[in-house]
Amino acid sequence: MKQDVMITCAVTGGADTTAKNPHIPVSAEEIARDVAEVAAAGATMVHIHVRDPETRLESWEKERFVEVVDRIRDQGTDIIINLTSAIGIQVGFNLDDPSQLDPEKTNFWAPDRRLEHLEAAMPDVCSLDVPIMNYNDTPYCNLPQHVGYMARRLQELKIKPEIECFDLGDMWRTQAYIDEGVFDAPPLIQLCMGVKYGVPATTRGIVAMCDMMPEGAVWGGFGIGPRQFPMVAQCVLMGGNVRVGLEDNLYLDKGVPATNAQLVERAVEIIERMGTNVSTVADARKTLNLREQ
Amino acid sequence: MKQDVMITCAVTGGADTTAKNPHIPVSAEEIARDVAEVAAAGATMVHIHVRDPETRLESWEKERFVEVVDRIRDQGTDIIINLTSAIGIQVGFNLDDPSQLDPEKTNFWAPDRRLEHLEAAMPDVCSLDVPIMNYNDTPYCNLPQHVGYMARRLQELKIKPEIECFDLGDMWRTQAYIDEGVFDAPPLIQLCMGVKYGVPATTRGIVAMCDMMPEGAVWGGFGIGPRQFPMVAQCVLMGGNVRVGLEDNLYLDKGVPATNAQLVERAVEIIERMGTNVSTVADARKTLNLREQ
Amino acid sequence: MKQDVMITCAVTGGADTTAKNPHIPVSAEEIARDVAEVAAAGATMVHIHVRDPETRLESWEKERFVEVVDRIRDQGTDIIINLTSAIGIQVGFNLDDPSQLDPEKTNFWAPDRRLEHLEAAMPDVCSLDVPIMNYNDTPYCNLPQHVGYMARRLQELKIKPEIECFDLGDMWRTQAYIDEGVFDAPPLIQLCMGVKYGVPATTRGIVAMCDMMPEGAVWGGFGIGPRQFPMVAQCVLMGGNVRVGLEDNLYLDKGVPATNAQLVERAVEIIERMGTNVSTVADARKTLNLREQ
Amino acid sequence: MKQDVMITCAVTGGADTTAKNPHIPVSAEEIARDVAEVAAAGATMVHIHVRDPETRLESWEKERFVEVVDRIRDQGTDIIINLTSAIGIQVGFNLDDPSQLDPEKTNFWAPDRRLEHLEAAMPDVCSLDVPIMNYNDTPYCNLPQHVGYMARRLQELKIKPEIECFDLGDMWRTQAYIDEGVFDAPPLIQLCMGVKYGVPATTRGIVAMCDMMPEGAVWGGFGIGPRQFPMVAQCVLMGGNVRVGLEDNLYLDKGVPATNAQLVERAVEIIERMGTNVSTVADARKTLNLREQ
Repeated sequence: MKQDVMITCAVTGGADTTAKNPHIPVSAEEIARDVAEVAAAGATMVHIHVRDPETRLESWEKERFVEVVDRIRDQGTDIIINLTSAIGIQVGFNLDDPSQLDPEKTNFWAPDRRLEHLEAAMPDVCSLDVPIMNYNDTPYCNLPQHVGYMARRLQELKIKPEIECFDLGDMWRTQAYIDEGVFDAPPLIQLCMGVKYGVPATTRGIVAMCDMMPEGAVWGGFGIGPRQFPMVAQCVLMGGNVRVGLEDNLYLDKGVPATNAQLVERAVEIIERMGTNVSTVADARKTLNLREQ
Repeated sequence: MKQDVMITCAVTGGADTTAKNPHIPVSAEEIARDVAEVAAAGATMVHIHVRDPETRLESWEKERFVEVVDRIRDQGTDIIINLTSAIGIQVGFNLDDPSQLDPEKTNFWAPDRRLEHLEAAMPDVCSLDVPIMNYNDTPYCNLPQHVGYMARRLQELKIKPEIECFDLGDMWRTQAYIDEGVFDAPPLIQLCMGVKYGVPATTRGIVAMCDMMPEGAVWGGFGIGPRQFPMVAQCVLMGGNVRVGLEDNLYLDKGVPATNAQLVERAVEIIERMGTNVSTVADARKTLNLREQ
Repeated sequence: MKQDVMITCAVTGGADTTAKNPHIPVSAEEIARDVAEVAAAGATMVHIHVRDPETRLESWEKERFVEVVDRIRDQGTDIIINLTSAIGIQVGFNLDDPSQLDPEKTNFWAPDRRLEHLEAAMPDVCSLDVPIMNYNDTPYCNLPQHVGYMARRLQELKIKPEIECFDLGDMWRTQAYIDEGVFDAPPLIQLCMGVKYGVPATTRGIVAMCDMMPEGAVWGGFGIGPRQFPMVAQCVLMGGNVRVGLEDNLYLDKGVPATNAQLVERAVEIIERMGTNVSTVADARKTLNLREQ
Repeated sequence: MKQDVMITCAVTGGADTTAKNPHIPVSAEEIARDVAEVAAAGATMVHIHVRDPETRLESWEKERFVEVVDRIRDQGTDIIINLTSAIGIQVGFNLDDPSQLDPEKTNFWAPDRRLEHLEAAMPDVCSLDVPIMNYNDTPYCNLPQHVGYMARRLQELKIKPEIECFDLGDMWRTQAYIDEGVFDAPPLIQLCMGVKYGVPATTRGIVAMCDMMPEGAVWGGFGIGPRQFPMVAQCVLMGGNVRVGLEDNLYLDKGVPATNAQLVERAVEIIERMGTNVSTVADARKTLNLREQ
């Protein structure tokens, strides 16, 4: 039986990257346009942050999320819409007196506030990070009380949480959540590889993560930057799904700024050249047991 | 050539455990007595926290560290003394408004303050944790700026930092520190396994950690609780050193409170029954390139 | 739940080793005596070759197997009796004209002849090697037609075949046999590690073998020579059973010839010091679904 | 630094496959034509068997090898020519009396005879298998005395042996040969994966092989049949070289007979889409330290 591979495209992300690549979609209109393009190119799911067109930086206004989702749905595509919830988890300390937070660098929210844009926009899926980690040398805190609360609320809303794991401990944590009944079956797991400092985006890194994969999980993974395409191949080789997109990687080849559609096209090429298939959206919706539209 | 295994005994730790095991040493006198016993039993190094005899809880008064080190040295043993630096790294948030710290649950210090007891007591070695992690559901924050600062200062003092890694990302972080010149050769690395939620204390967990071991490192590892003795065997099988002690595990067998000496004796038994040797202190001092006493 | 570990003792083997260790049992009487001793020491199963007391070398006279089995049963022990079938599989070539066999070095039999001593002695279990391999630089040929024939016949006789695997390919071959219905459930698999040139007796070696373990298999493993006790610990750590005995290793410590009972005692010590149990014979008989006595 | 990947094309092989794929080159002229095409497509090396145009089956007449090599060199290409030596190693037994060889199924030669075509044709490289193994249920015997003899003679002739390993034991054997000084530096190692019954053509299989890779080896690998392209990606991901070609796989996609050039083109596509380079022939000749032409 041929392996069907779901392709997620993470179209814009939240980092301050737009100066490096002019193709990064910023406005709701641009994001919806990119979604149409990657859907045509073969993407099964889109992972979406929103930006403020003035500053071109990440925004958390719920109206922007609603506008993006509405624009995508109005295009008539059935692509799976996955919104970020990786908001309000950044903690900055006063380095000289770390018993004090640095309000400039801190953006830590209660879970209800992190859910507002999701309740408003009602995507099919939303990401749900589990780690407390050193994310590019900044603490990035997903308190377990918050994760559990959000997971339960999302599942009441019939929004499927995509559990993002960055290291072996997150896999263990995810298994513990599953054992506690926090996640409905099948658990949907994203392996985020090559983020400093989590699991490296290597063959041995992914094997170690897969050694801890919960039974019955639907999983995929991605690598950051130049490890994006190697990890497409590696995830397929381990039987998983893949993610590409301008959130994770700005370049098609060294020095060549990519478009989202080009990144998806290349993922399709790698998947097909290895003798595997790209999943249809309909099959993916069934596998993930998503709510009816 | 026979493999020589260094045994570290972590004699008391900082957790609120004394009610569970009456053998946990609390006063400086008790700690020094346990050190004498584990040295006789074959330990190469002792890892030491101190406690307040009134509360029986962890203490960070530098005088207590000085007293313990003096008492040990006065016993005439050359055992390697390793003091903790895992102090002042705990961050507690107000769960309802996580943009505020909960001062009751927060104990986060600047690095100079974390070095005071070390400068006063001048051990051979001190632990130096690298992760920002979910430690039993509490954020435990080793800011990289602090880790680098402490490593440099410790090496000026000729106190050898023992780098504590809890997951794959910490191994990557350690390699980056080494590449930046933060650690003098040989790097001394401790794999802390089975802590919720880091690398699990399993064969596959340790293999994944060793896959990222920096070249030339002297390393050991330990497992928590009932994984203490399995991980003694597993570390030896992977060519590493071992750690036991009441900090990590309270029981000799299920329901049988251990003494530190019993835990070391059992580690010796496992090491020798697998055909390997216990290292002498003199050899270990040479391998680690410790300062002359 | 505590892990129960079956201990097999391979008491004598077929190699020309008796000059190196005076404790190797040779006569049926000596073998039965050693079986009694290892049963008392905690062994769950004994793996048995027989020898000619005149030459002290391996013998394949079925009467000797019958005598050994009878003597063991007459002692009233219920220990599981596992006879070798690794007979008649050695092929020697004329090195100058390898299209000719060297009859002096060839001992290759049809499967019915290899079954004679088993039909006569009716052990509980018999070993069944699957590889065609370079065994200490001699071809050692288990033709698949023969393996399949023997497996089927053994299962008709209700003698449980213990499938011996020496490298990854043998694990694949075993899975193929299982898929073809050759082996009744549960498959009983022995990982033979450290034989030149098969899978090495290392942590990474056993992990690679376990990565290919058929579902539902009851398995154990052993290492050769000085890797015997390291592999006892490693098999337990991977959740498997263990094998020791003078067939695989002659020494208790470097230069100290062992007795079978001493080897079993040490295996028990390692198993128990790691917090696991030795299986009872009764539990092992149930797990392996052996025929009633 | 970008990774340079050498691509070997195994153009025809020795199996009875020509009825299944009309593109398999048979005559010296056809083989030379395919070599020109794969060189143009990006191949760095060609691995060559020869066939009898009458029977279309494998041939071992040295004149055919000479003719192929001459034709290739006359085309002016500098592609690395690698001839097989996997001849005269097949052993067939009389199944009813396996102490007798079956001359119909046996083709086992002394090493001098296996070297004749190599001395005559003087390729740059020749394959040198090390296993004694169950090759598709036939014993395939590379006696160690023969391997050592051939390796020494080839190196005198300045023909580089490419050591073919089919399972973990072969890696260990290769390390032992290297320790004995049998192979000149750098050892050139081919991982042959997915052959029944050797190491499987999986991620875990290749990781296990690489765990035993001799220091300083130049290595590549391939998978059989539909695992050809997955293993191209997997070898690159592990830092190795790749092999494709009609010897190992007949199809471009399911049911679509391939040409050698198409297989090489697809390997190039996979390599480049993962962000790596195809090696030049000149660089590969230098890396392998081949004799001057």
